[in-house]
Amino acid sequence: MTDTGTPAESRPAPVTLRMIAEQVGVSVSTVSRVLNAGDAEALRWASAQTVARIREYAAARAYRPNPHAASLRTSRSSLIGVLVPRLQDFVLATVYEGIDEAATENGFSTFVTNSLDDPASRAVRTEMMLQRRVEGMIFGDARDDDALLADLAARGVPFVLVSRRSADHASVTCDDLLGGTLVGRRLLEAGRRDLAVLAGLPFASTAIERTRGAVRAFADAGLRVPKERIAWGPFDAAGGREAAEKLLATEPYPDAIFATNDFAAIGAMGVLRDRGLRVPDDISLIGYNDTPLAAELPIPLTTVHSPMHEMGRHGVNLLIDVLGGADPESVRLDPTLIVRESG
Amino acid sequence: MTDTGTPAESRPAPVTLRMIAEQVGVSVSTVSRVLNAGDAEALRWASAQTVARIREYAAARAYRPNPHAASLRTSRSSLIGVLVPRLQDFVLATVYEGIDEAATENGFSTFVTNSLDDPASRAVRTEMMLQRRVEGMIFGDARDDDALLADLAARGVPFVLVSRRSADHASVTCDDLLGGTLVGRRLLEAGRRDLAVLAGLPFASTAIERTRGAVRAFADAGLRVPKERIAWGPFDAAGGREAAEKLLATEPYPDAIFATNDFAAIGAMGVLRDRGLRVPDDISLIGYNDTPLAAELPIPLTTVHSPMHEMGRHGVNLLIDVLGGADPESVRLDPTLIVRESG
Repeated sequence: MTDTGTPAESRPAPVTLRMIAEQVGVSVSTVSRVLNAGDAEALRWASAQTVARIREYAAARAYRPNPHAASLRTSRSSLIGVLVPRLQDFVLATVYEGIDEAATENGFSTFVTNSLDDPASRAVRTEMMLQRRVEGMIFGDARDDDALLADLAARGVPFVLVSRRSADHASVTCDDLLGGTLVGRRLLEAGRRDLAVLAGLPFASTAIERTRGAVRAFADAGLRVPKERIAWGPFDAAGGREAAEKLLATEPYPDAIFATNDFAAIGAMGVLRDRGLRVPDDISLIGYNDTPLAAELPIPLTTVHSPMHEMGRHGVNLLIDVLGGADPESVRLDPTLIVRESG
Repeated sequence: MTDTGTPAESRPAPVTLRMIAEQVGVSVSTVSRVLNAGDAEALRWASAQTVARIREYAAARAYRPNPHAASLRTSRSSLIGVLVPRLQDFVLATVYEGIDEAATENGFSTFVTNSLDDPASRAVRTEMMLQRRVEGMIFGDARDDDALLADLAARGVPFVLVSRRSADHASVTCDDLLGGTLVGRRLLEAGRRDLAVLAGLPFASTAIERTRGAVRAFADAGLRVPKERIAWGPFDAAGGREAAEKLLATEPYPDAIFATNDFAAIGAMGVLRDRGLRVPDDISLIGYNDTPLAAELPIPLTTVHSPMHEMGRHGVNLLIDVLGGADPESVRLDPTLIVRESG
């Protein structure tokens, strides 16, 4: 669609409230109220169509309720492209909710699509978004060695990372090394000495750093976690099942399992159940992310809370900084260990 | 953005492969291969940028690998707007994956956003999508009495519904009445006589019909389900917890609980666990949707499988029919009862 997108030529400087009011045919105070309100409150002041017209007009003309953003942009599509591994994953869906919320508040719309962590899909879908003239990209599927991101950076495409980090690209992540460390220490306190890890995807910083944190905590206590105790695989229930089956293929069994994702932990729960192994009596089990299911399971899951929604909101703010020409610091959010019964 | 979208004036008739090849600067056979391949295979024939250019050029000029769609469209944005209640919900995220997949295959891009089932957000976000010049809309958040949809239909906006149906608008749904009936019959076979239902949202056809199916099955066996045995609430773990607490506030307890959503069932599991009630010995519990967690829980969850991904794909095909001026039949997919240990 190279010939049908928003024209690139520049437009007039940012509008005033009065200009929007005249254009849309409402009062200045209505424009002001609508631009400073959420969806429900905005409808107290104008119809849905008028609210949408006011917002879109303001966005296209670079009026920003947030003055930080307003000063930066004059002639843009007001589109952000978002790539996630998979929206079916509760974690990334929640991060995306934060992105969508903050984007809407700042007059942006978002395209989101799944890359399924497939390099071919990532490359093609990124190009399709760029040809839709997105102003910038947010990636939730960065890889530790990421040729696509290097290429985009070299081409000057504005982007930020959320959830996973890579090289020195601007990112918003949780402190995954600390999160893993908290898990390792907790298991040591519970008297566990033989750790196994359902590590997640081997090219994801989340998986690598959470695993490293737990393994280091054991090393600091003089306990080595051998390589065969670490099983890599997808961050979901099926991936957790498969990895747990691998780890429990031969005895002796570990006395603790750390799954770097709650859904993988639930997959492991199924395997432990099938083998008659009790959680936590025979094997402690700790997950990651504190999804709403963790507390409700018949065996409540000890896990690490990560601020997923907040991560998405920060990602949009960081991208707005990048779009303004800044070279912002990456943001690292804090994890919290939530102790329940499983480990 | 009313003044910056794709111009509405018509463009030349659908292009041939040769025209695309000349425009993009590759051979006709490369164009043909790319347009008939998935992302990974397409990259065997051209770079990601070239693949994206070929696809976007073809889409903008109404070339369609699917000849049914090709004949219909001449000058369009190739954008579909999608409203879902919440992508955090595994069910809707999976439906959206099907939509995104089928849309991409047909040269469309999608905007998706959460309405959170809030009428104000639905109205405003729909208007924002229309002002982005989407060609049509897919709603996953229809209501039983839906003024917004009535208004859009009156204005001639092309749209279809997925997951939930409403009035006689074109929709792709699972046969929820049958699904509920299968649950009711199963519980009767298991000797249960006192049913309670975590019904879901009272304005959603999914909730209404699944509940009605189960209640009717009990009625057919001469067993009445009184109104106070039915608790309405959100389709998630927190909603399931709250509704289960309401249902179990006073004795006598029911001997069976049907949750119209697996996550609500897991919330109910937490309540039953807290009260020392055993599943299924004291109370049978059946969920809905057969999410991947259901099989892995310490007490494997009996549930109803619904074809969520397929539903999304059908939704795109139905919308393409609507865009072509057809008045297509709604699609009703079949549910399957999956019996496990909980009920």
